[in-house]
Amino acid sequence: MMIYLDNAATTKPFDGVLRKMSELYEERFFNPSALYTPAYAVAKEIESARESICRFLGSGGTVYFTSCATESNTWVFSCGIKNKKGNIVISAGEHASVYENAHALIAKGYDVRIVNLSADGTVNQSDLMRKTDQNTTLVSVLHCNNETGAVNDIAALARSVKKVAPHALFHSDGVQALCKIPVRCADAGIDLYSVSAHKIGGVKGVGALWVRNGIRLAPMLLGGGQEKGERSGTENTAGIIGFAEAIRLFSQTDANAVADMRHAVRRTLLATDNVLINESENNSPYILSASISGIRSEILQRKLAERGIFIGLGSACSSRLKKNRILSAMGRSMSYIEGSIRISFGAQNSPIEIPAVCTALQEEIAALRT
Amino acid sequence: MMIYLDNAATTKPFDGVLRKMSELYEERFFNPSALYTPAYAVAKEIESARESICRFLGSGGTVYFTSCATESNTWVFSCGIKNKKGNIVISAGEHASVYENAHALIAKGYDVRIVNLSADGTVNQSDLMRKTDQNTTLVSVLHCNNETGAVNDIAALARSVKKVAPHALFHSDGVQALCKIPVRCADAGIDLYSVSAHKIGGVKGVGALWVRNGIRLAPMLLGGGQEKGERSGTENTAGIIGFAEAIRLFSQTDANAVADMRHAVRRTLLATDNVLINESENNSPYILSASISGIRSEILQRKLAERGIFIGLGSACSSRLKKNRILSAMGRSMSYIEGSIRISFGAQNSPIEIPAVCTALQEEIAALRT
Repeated sequence: MMIYLDNAATTKPFDGVLRKMSELYEERFFNPSALYTPAYAVAKEIESARESICRFLGSGGTVYFTSCATESNTWVFSCGIKNKKGNIVISAGEHASVYENAHALIAKGYDVRIVNLSADGTVNQSDLMRKTDQNTTLVSVLHCNNETGAVNDIAALARSVKKVAPHALFHSDGVQALCKIPVRCADAGIDLYSVSAHKIGGVKGVGALWVRNGIRLAPMLLGGGQEKGERSGTENTAGIIGFAEAIRLFSQTDANAVADMRHAVRRTLLATDNVLINESENNSPYILSASISGIRSEILQRKLAERGIFIGLGSACSSRLKKNRILSAMGRSMSYIEGSIRISFGAQNSPIEIPAVCTALQEEIAALRT
Repeated sequence: MMIYLDNAATTKPFDGVLRKMSELYEERFFNPSALYTPAYAVAKEIESARESICRFLGSGGTVYFTSCATESNTWVFSCGIKNKKGNIVISAGEHASVYENAHALIAKGYDVRIVNLSADGTVNQSDLMRKTDQNTTLVSVLHCNNETGAVNDIAALARSVKKVAPHALFHSDGVQALCKIPVRCADAGIDLYSVSAHKIGGVKGVGALWVRNGIRLAPMLLGGGQEKGERSGTENTAGIIGFAEAIRLFSQTDANAVADMRHAVRRTLLATDNVLINESENNSPYILSASISGIRSEILQRKLAERGIFIGLGSACSSRLKKNRILSAMGRSMSYIEGSIRISFGAQNSPIEIPAVCTALQEEIAALRT
């Protein structure tokens, strides 16, 4: 039996999503821009998907579909900033796509300020306020960190930012929060919110950007004027309609069962010497990050994989990078960082898997330490 | 029985592509960036897909996967031009994505020159040479026009351009040519070539940009460094592997049968009064464009759809635009443009459909003209 505990890297799309997509591929394969009835019907299905995702994220905005959250984030950074006047503020805990976009702006001479993390992995609010001022044009703070599951109180952060920088755009990368941490974007003071389908049981290749009413981002991809002119390119019809279905199905899964599984593994790790759990007070129940002194995490990962248990290291997206910048920003020492793992839980897991996971962790950590 | 004659707008993906994608969704759903064996296996499958598409396009370059040809084209225009010095040359026959990207540059003050079309819909080579000079930095000429099927002799055009502008990038939008008009990009003198999966039996949401060896385009989407750092964003694994499979399967289909079907419908239309066929000498056998004086094409399209025959107008991507800029650029008068239709043929069609199509066209044109 394989046990998959590496978030989207090992998450099979929901059967219901694949069934829905298969109907589109087999029967409703029309280009929604064409002008006859069956094509209109597909266009209407896309609009229903859009409306249901909008409803899910709270009223007061709309979503435009993209190919992934990296595209959504890049769109914000390449079209959300008018000129070099003013400054841009991001956190040190951002996903690579925000982080790299911000660094590309630094290379072009923009004033980009990077806010420190607290020891629990959340954004340090006083440092955020120190770095934000009335000339700030864009603030980007992710909702839930993909490596630690640390959850930022995004509404409180947005409120503080808007007090000193009322005209700044407040963007949040919500990829790890979607369906997992409740949010009503407009009420929370968010202007732009990036999400992705494959983290919640949809397929890879579909993302979206939620945009508050009244805000218009210039389009990044130009062409046939799809997505109301905001994102050209033939729509990934099946992927988009599957995305809405994934949100519906994910919302029916049992978050408490997930929290219980995480809690059990967390308890086992805490009972092991020299293990630190990297988490915030209201951490995501879907992610457990642990730093295990005296081992190298890649080796633990491989040993567990040999037993059919698949866990993550940091982010799959940055698995090839040497250094873990998130844990560094939280102040973890190198001996702990080298032994850092990420265990993700979700609807694909069952409580009956957990004893085997706990035993394997205990045994392999002990073996690696001797 | 439904008869689908509107190119990708009505083309069901190949069963073999859907089977392959289904295997990925159901069994090999791993993120190719993760570090354990089953994830590596998916990464290897993506590399095989890349290699097989590269082989198909001729040696001397590589492809980077994108979400659609619109992304590929936008990438070329947003990252292929270093500064405002020099000029950019496109043809009047370009797809909306190249056309809109070029117009966005005009709005920013760039010197963009638009080359006239000849009456047969191909790019006017002498006008191209008049507008290209040693300061030209980018030339973009599509390989096969999506509305008329007119085929440009891309190798001859690239050769002439390189003579006067040896450092210019020569880009071609190859969406309508892929698998239909043979090309070996590097040998033809092409530097960048955009392609898309859903026009040849793959699914919507996958494209690619072929890049000649030795050329490096700065990445447009920034993040986790996927696609060798050239295009970040979690890979659409199933769509990409399905794309390579679509090329393989399309290459096994019978191009002569398609040409015969086109020829039969063409003969019927030419036997009708006041109908002009919009085509070049070596027109794509997959597209038949006709301008029928005295009718409105939307009404003909609807009448045919009521009989279960689905044809296109211009491009599905520009179906909501009032004016047909391609046919205008070819010098067609308004009375013909208003009655212009696009009939596309492909592997999904069978010769037994054709008599019904010819009869329906004759009857409905006659009815609309009375």
